[in-house]
Amino acid sequence: MSFDQKEIFSLMYKLARLIVPDTRVEYDSMGAMHIPLDRMYGPQTLRSLIKFPIGGVEERMPRPLIKAMGIVKKAAAEANKNCLEEKLCDAISKACDDVISGKLYEEEHFPLVIWQDGCGEHTNMNINEVICNRAIEILGGQVGTKDPVDPDEHVNLSQCSHDTFTTAARIAVAMQLQEKMYPSLRTFIDLLAKKSSDWRDVIKIGRTHLMDAVPLSLGQEFSGYQQQLVNGRTRLDSALCRLYELPMGGSMVGTKENTTQGFSEQCIKRIADLTFLPFVESPNFFESMSACDALVELHGELNTIAASLMKIANDIRLLGSGPRSGFAELNLPEIEPGCAIMPGVVKASQCEALTMICAQVMGNQVAVSMGASSGHFQLNTFVPMIASNVLRSITLLGDGMKSFCIHCLEGLEPNKSRIETIMKDSLMLVTALSPHIGYERSAGIAIAAHQNGTTLKQEALRAGIKMEDFQEWVQPSKMLGPDN
Amino acid sequence: MSFDQKEIFSLMYKLARLIVPDTRVEYDSMGAMHIPLDRMYGPQTLRSLIKFPIGGVEERMPRPLIKAMGIVKKAAAEANKNCLEEKLCDAISKACDDVISGKLYEEEHFPLVIWQDGCGEHTNMNINEVICNRAIEILGGQVGTKDPVDPDEHVNLSQCSHDTFTTAARIAVAMQLQEKMYPSLRTFIDLLAKKSSDWRDVIKIGRTHLMDAVPLSLGQEFSGYQQQLVNGRTRLDSALCRLYELPMGGSMVGTKENTTQGFSEQCIKRIADLTFLPFVESPNFFESMSACDALVELHGELNTIAASLMKIANDIRLLGSGPRSGFAELNLPEIEPGCAIMPGVVKASQCEALTMICAQVMGNQVAVSMGASSGHFQLNTFVPMIASNVLRSITLLGDGMKSFCIHCLEGLEPNKSRIETIMKDSLMLVTALSPHIGYERSAGIAIAAHQNGTTLKQEALRAGIKMEDFQEWVQPSKMLGPDN
Amino acid sequence: MSFDQKEIFSLMYKLARLIVPDTRVEYDSMGAMHIPLDRMYGPQTLRSLIKFPIGGVEERMPRPLIKAMGIVKKAAAEANKNCLEEKLCDAISKACDDVISGKLYEEEHFPLVIWQDGCGEHTNMNINEVICNRAIEILGGQVGTKDPVDPDEHVNLSQCSHDTFTTAARIAVAMQLQEKMYPSLRTFIDLLAKKSSDWRDVIKIGRTHLMDAVPLSLGQEFSGYQQQLVNGRTRLDSALCRLYELPMGGSMVGTKENTTQGFSEQCIKRIADLTFLPFVESPNFFESMSACDALVELHGELNTIAASLMKIANDIRLLGSGPRSGFAELNLPEIEPGCAIMPGVVKASQCEALTMICAQVMGNQVAVSMGASSGHFQLNTFVPMIASNVLRSITLLGDGMKSFCIHCLEGLEPNKSRIETIMKDSLMLVTALSPHIGYERSAGIAIAAHQNGTTLKQEALRAGIKMEDFQEWVQPSKMLGPDN
Amino acid sequence: MSFDQKEIFSLMYKLARLIVPDTRVEYDSMGAMHIPLDRMYGPQTLRSLIKFPIGGVEERMPRPLIKAMGIVKKAAAEANKNCLEEKLCDAISKACDDVISGKLYEEEHFPLVIWQDGCGEHTNMNINEVICNRAIEILGGQVGTKDPVDPDEHVNLSQCSHDTFTTAARIAVAMQLQEKMYPSLRTFIDLLAKKSSDWRDVIKIGRTHLMDAVPLSLGQEFSGYQQQLVNGRTRLDSALCRLYELPMGGSMVGTKENTTQGFSEQCIKRIADLTFLPFVESPNFFESMSACDALVELHGELNTIAASLMKIANDIRLLGSGPRSGFAELNLPEIEPGCAIMPGVVKASQCEALTMICAQVMGNQVAVSMGASSGHFQLNTFVPMIASNVLRSITLLGDGMKSFCIHCLEGLEPNKSRIETIMKDSLMLVTALSPHIGYERSAGIAIAAHQNGTTLKQEALRAGIKMEDFQEWVQPSKMLGPDN
Repeated sequence: MSFDQKEIFSLMYKLARLIVPDTRVEYDSMGAMHIPLDRMYGPQTLRSLIKFPIGGVEERMPRPLIKAMGIVKKAAAEANKNCLEEKLCDAISKACDDVISGKLYEEEHFPLVIWQDGCGEHTNMNINEVICNRAIEILGGQVGTKDPVDPDEHVNLSQCSHDTFTTAARIAVAMQLQEKMYPSLRTFIDLLAKKSSDWRDVIKIGRTHLMDAVPLSLGQEFSGYQQQLVNGRTRLDSALCRLYELPMGGSMVGTKENTTQGFSEQCIKRIADLTFLPFVESPNFFESMSACDALVELHGELNTIAASLMKIANDIRLLGSGPRSGFAELNLPEIEPGCAIMPGVVKASQCEALTMICAQVMGNQVAVSMGASSGHFQLNTFVPMIASNVLRSITLLGDGMKSFCIHCLEGLEPNKSRIETIMKDSLMLVTALSPHIGYERSAGIAIAAHQNGTTLKQEALRAGIKMEDFQEWVQPSKMLGPDN
Repeated sequence: MSFDQKEIFSLMYKLARLIVPDTRVEYDSMGAMHIPLDRMYGPQTLRSLIKFPIGGVEERMPRPLIKAMGIVKKAAAEANKNCLEEKLCDAISKACDDVISGKLYEEEHFPLVIWQDGCGEHTNMNINEVICNRAIEILGGQVGTKDPVDPDEHVNLSQCSHDTFTTAARIAVAMQLQEKMYPSLRTFIDLLAKKSSDWRDVIKIGRTHLMDAVPLSLGQEFSGYQQQLVNGRTRLDSALCRLYELPMGGSMVGTKENTTQGFSEQCIKRIADLTFLPFVESPNFFESMSACDALVELHGELNTIAASLMKIANDIRLLGSGPRSGFAELNLPEIEPGCAIMPGVVKASQCEALTMICAQVMGNQVAVSMGASSGHFQLNTFVPMIASNVLRSITLLGDGMKSFCIHCLEGLEPNKSRIETIMKDSLMLVTALSPHIGYERSAGIAIAAHQNGTTLKQEALRAGIKMEDFQEWVQPSKMLGPDN
Repeated sequence: MSFDQKEIFSLMYKLARLIVPDTRVEYDSMGAMHIPLDRMYGPQTLRSLIKFPIGGVEERMPRPLIKAMGIVKKAAAEANKNCLEEKLCDAISKACDDVISGKLYEEEHFPLVIWQDGCGEHTNMNINEVICNRAIEILGGQVGTKDPVDPDEHVNLSQCSHDTFTTAARIAVAMQLQEKMYPSLRTFIDLLAKKSSDWRDVIKIGRTHLMDAVPLSLGQEFSGYQQQLVNGRTRLDSALCRLYELPMGGSMVGTKENTTQGFSEQCIKRIADLTFLPFVESPNFFESMSACDALVELHGELNTIAASLMKIANDIRLLGSGPRSGFAELNLPEIEPGCAIMPGVVKASQCEALTMICAQVMGNQVAVSMGASSGHFQLNTFVPMIASNVLRSITLLGDGMKSFCIHCLEGLEPNKSRIETIMKDSLMLVTALSPHIGYERSAGIAIAAHQNGTTLKQEALRAGIKMEDFQEWVQPSKMLGPDN
Repeated sequence: MSFDQKEIFSLMYKLARLIVPDTRVEYDSMGAMHIPLDRMYGPQTLRSLIKFPIGGVEERMPRPLIKAMGIVKKAAAEANKNCLEEKLCDAISKACDDVISGKLYEEEHFPLVIWQDGCGEHTNMNINEVICNRAIEILGGQVGTKDPVDPDEHVNLSQCSHDTFTTAARIAVAMQLQEKMYPSLRTFIDLLAKKSSDWRDVIKIGRTHLMDAVPLSLGQEFSGYQQQLVNGRTRLDSALCRLYELPMGGSMVGTKENTTQGFSEQCIKRIADLTFLPFVESPNFFESMSACDALVELHGELNTIAASLMKIANDIRLLGSGPRSGFAELNLPEIEPGCAIMPGVVKASQCEALTMICAQVMGNQVAVSMGASSGHFQLNTFVPMIASNVLRSITLLGDGMKSFCIHCLEGLEPNKSRIETIMKDSLMLVTALSPHIGYERSAGIAIAAHQNGTTLKQEALRAGIKMEDFQEWVQPSKMLGPDN
């Protein structure tokens, strides 16, 4: 844009402000737009708002992505110092801080939805416009004048939506994992370890095919859940190294055209500094810009964790079923008013929330896979959808596990008398009798108990076994395996 | 609750207000809660807010569901007139109007998220509490006192979250279909019909396996898209009759216990009146409360429509690819600033938004199916998740199709010169030569053209065919089938 | 192909036979292939076998599709009588009978796998070659000579793989529904109706959120399952009308080029006659050839049925859990040897098989949707994959339901004494006490029973209620709703 | 079983053989069954065959699973030597060799389908019975007499279907990965590396949003594909360590009850020896028997690879589209007869097969996830379904990639003249002009070329730029980024 045009724009701008007082007029190559005075974005954001009115506030580009874009822009501004006036770079970098802190998000300057341009270009423009105006403010200029900062020429310098947005998507996901997922996983694992240890002596019936089986301890049962989540954490770890590979600076198609030597490297180094995460340059920018495989892989791990959690939450609600007609081996903490006339009915609402989340994550897996597989040539154009699904799965799993831990798992207590009654009633202990009196005779005792609805002990005594022998031989605590 | 307790509560309430001025204290069976004074909900809502802090505002129970709950509560209040004081019924019914209109939603009295109790009980309580307080206001009482209206005894009378929420889910879905889906489908179909008619004479190359094939008209191509969506609409129609079957009044397990004779019938009739939709009593309440099959079926139709739209949007962006290196048969309208230095590059951002939506819907399909299949016994406990996915799919498809129609499809124009050039270059027209000069000779001409990079006409003339014969024989317009 | 070439081919053929005695040599435009003498297919089949060695016998094109191709070819042969020598038409038609009957399939003349050309062209060629050779046999010619019948010129006359295979896919699906799905659904529904009727007086505890709830009858519980499957059947019905629309005769892109007037109509009429199913011409051939939406829709209904069956089978195995530590309300028939020493342990292996099938169907839904949405322009190229998934889902659901009915559902018996014990123990019956002695007093009795681990009756008597009053008031049979 | 019973059984057996000559009679605890004389299996296999007639030969338990069961049984027989007569152990071990080699599979002694007992117990019995009879043969006994080898007491000694089958599932998957997946991945990666290197100087237009973008080399484009698959291989590697953890010897619920000290350890060591794979004891048997998370994780990686392959195959078929109306930048090798009259039409049938496979794998992902998340307590009962899906995905991807490499990728050739023509026509090269003559003037030239349908060079010359300057400035080869 030549200087003359700028002058003209500036005059038109002032004129427009006189005519329509609550808005300012800004221009892009398609013409003028009236921007609300209290909004920091510009005409391109407004165009997207008008042309993509898809869903409401629920469909907005996720906040962690906006924050990550702030980080990308700050890193770029600083990496641009060798080719852009330092004063401008500093102002842009400072403006980015208000994106990163969430301040500008809360003031509603980022209204665009997920369902826009498939590489997130509209959001890239939105960020450019807002940072531009904020930087202008910092430098004492007038918002909307593109003077002395221009969204395209300065804020977006050396960048392209093609590389910035997909870079930001990975940053956002990596940060959310640290913020939401890992802490919840640790809480969950620690709690399961505690339960597993506390309940190592609570011996209970095993169930296979939902039928009575040989005993194990409640601690052993919960140690299995613990291992599932320990593995889940390792699974996430294993996907991280590919998530940390960024194509920042790849420009339009990955060839880094129109970027200065070293821009990519410096920018990514700065991102690593800002996030305290080990981001590195992607070994192949063509892969990283045309594919979202790293996000598919990561979501595959989230999907595996969802499968684990679905199993665990389902087991716990079944073990808590009752109070009179269910398994009733666990007492769940009361977290909401029950009905006075129906005492003992404690719904597993935390399990219900968590299993709903797991089903959602398994659905998100399909959306992510489908989007990633449907890209064309040098650019995947499903990135906003993919990134928002990965971020949503992380938020739901992270928050859901945390709620579950605090409001369900922590307060879980074994219903010891019920567990013991079941053990006493169980016919499966007959396997402990067999080595002493033989298979045939043992089976006979079990069958008699089954037919008469009696206990093993009752039938054993009736069959002539001495009480002290029975008590010596039939001890569930000796049936927990060589390691116990 | 006896009168004495109420009196005590009232005194405690006044006392609490003196102590903590910005909140009021309300009680439920678990104890006291401080409720912000500007909120109409009560302690049970606050408990859910505290115990299920899963996701932010994006995860809130969808607005159409809140509205539908308002309709359910209004219908119930009116059906309760034979067993509850008319004054109370009227106040409740009037309070419901502020739920239905969205007024109370906008004032943020419904803050709960999807991820809560699996039958939506928390939201049922939220609605009860808000309507109760609003009815108290209407009757001149003091918010939070449960006097003269009680959320459980009056607003929830004859109801249970088990039947109300799943009923509301169906109502919300049916209303959103009318509001979002059908109008967009009609717009889309009408536009496709117009394009199909306008372009009946634009003859173009057919493509199968992505390779050149015999010609068809652009109108024929678009008539296929039109038929896909006409079928899509019929598919939705076919699922509606089962969606309209409500288990309202089924109470806790579907036996209608503790409801008055005729409550179910009157309530559903009133729902039909309020929504202008043909809701009826479910033929089997046990099915309708323990299963969400009607929503799975409906989402299956949305999934089919998504498959259609994915194909259509993908074709259009491929046909619009270029300007120089792509198919370039269609010119897409410019809806956002391009780059001056790269003229003619008009991104298919509406196609990108729509295909992202389709992938999301296909993911939602899995979440819905999984939730519906995972219910136990008399109650499905994935309803909030299922309903929110169906509603989201409807909103995204409805809004996405509308945006696509207005900002892409309507302005689509054939690039006639390019289409003609391709036709002229095509070797597939040789099939029109074959009946006149025989297969072998025709093939020879085609092969020559292929090897020499020439046109059919050039090689045909070289092979001795007269210009007038060639022009008579090889007319793409005669290759469009007997019906054209 | 000119006569001379044929003569040369014939000589080369004879020569080749002398050299390699166990094979014959056949030619296509790419050259000569040695075909095993005991195989009726030709060189194009062999090429596909060699170039697409993907998976083993399990991955073969499904038999119902081969049969349906036989029907298509027979119908085409008869519709071709006005443009092809009657003798040839008759021989081809007769040869098709051996495809339709399965004879040629069993003799292993159709070895190609699903994973081939995306419109099933290889299978179309395979069918053409086999029918050709069988017709040659019928006419007394020599297999492999293309004399007097040619696979391309005669068997494939007026056809293209683009229209024949997708037509055959719909025919195969429609026939399999009749053969496998509807009969199993009827058996299932009838059995559920019988159980529902037989067990109308077996009153049992209801369960919501897996917790004790108010009672219902076992008959009511099973009537819900019955309604699910009745709805499932209606869902299939509603999708059929679009499945019956065939694009047969659409030729390469849907324009019917190179087909004789009326071919399409006559061919489809003949297909309807041969299958006794109401197939009609598609209202838009472009839709029907470029999209597989009818199959996506149909699979959406299968997916809904799978969700229903998953719920039903899961409920039944939970109700059958035990014998001592589970719900134990149902006794499952023994269909396999248990362990003598563990009497009463009857695994729900039919439930396990059926739920595995349901999970598979839900996976197939994604494959089908993804394939259908990924077509380009005039032809979908995922048809073999889509069709094989729909056919597999039908086979698994049909066979699985049938096995489940015969070997599990039919022999299911209520464990009446256990059901009664649970009812007697249940505290939920207190809701029947409340109208007589008030909420507060009733709740007190329930709480006492809960705390003391006693029954309601015990605590009621202790609280001064008379035995005869208790027995009069607390009758589960009166709690089943107004309709019972 | 006591000696007397055995004697009686032996007599009854001989008698039965006299009566029904083509079958032998075998007994289990449910009674007698007539087994075909030429089958090595026993009554329990036959019961499953009769009671689970679900699907045909396509639905059989996959061969690699049978092989893996043979390995498990052999390892167990050898680990049992301290508690079972060596002669019997050796005979069993030797019999296992015929399972492992596939000999007994090919002779059709393993007819059971996937859809059976959910922990694969029927197949475990089938294996036991067949190995038993084979061992009897080896020892000179009579098949069907259980003398001197008994399927339960000897072949299944120290084992349970609960631990053996899930162990075999992991072994089968690990072996198939080695046999099918890794070799194909290597071939694919090597070929892509070769193409990437060969084509490093073939400069072509880049495409983003399907629109013309700045250039890159064809080698760069293919290097992105290569990186995708290199990452895919690393992804598989990362999942292997958890796949190698076996719960062998866990017995019924994971407590190792009824196994001898060290059985688990020795057995797993032997499995590692037999397979040359680093199998180890699972750190937690409760996790490994109640969950299939390791298989979900692994399938998540296969799903990611499928997303990569879908993208790659789709790009290649688009680049190969034409010959006249498509992108036409790549020439695909002809692998099947085309149509003489339509020269140059080479369908991307290998791409079609591969993309169909990818869609199938993405569907399988849902089935696997759903099954894994639906287990109860100590045992997952979806193992046959899960394992068969993972094995199928491996087979399809492995075979599909191999076919694709040999019959498509290897013969792929750039259509250099077309690629150059596109480059020459492209307006995007204007970005190379801009640094020399300024943005505004460059844009003017580009716009003129766009409007006039001319080339950049034509308009540049017309605008007064010298030919030698243009040729010096506008060199696509200089636009490929700093690294080229």
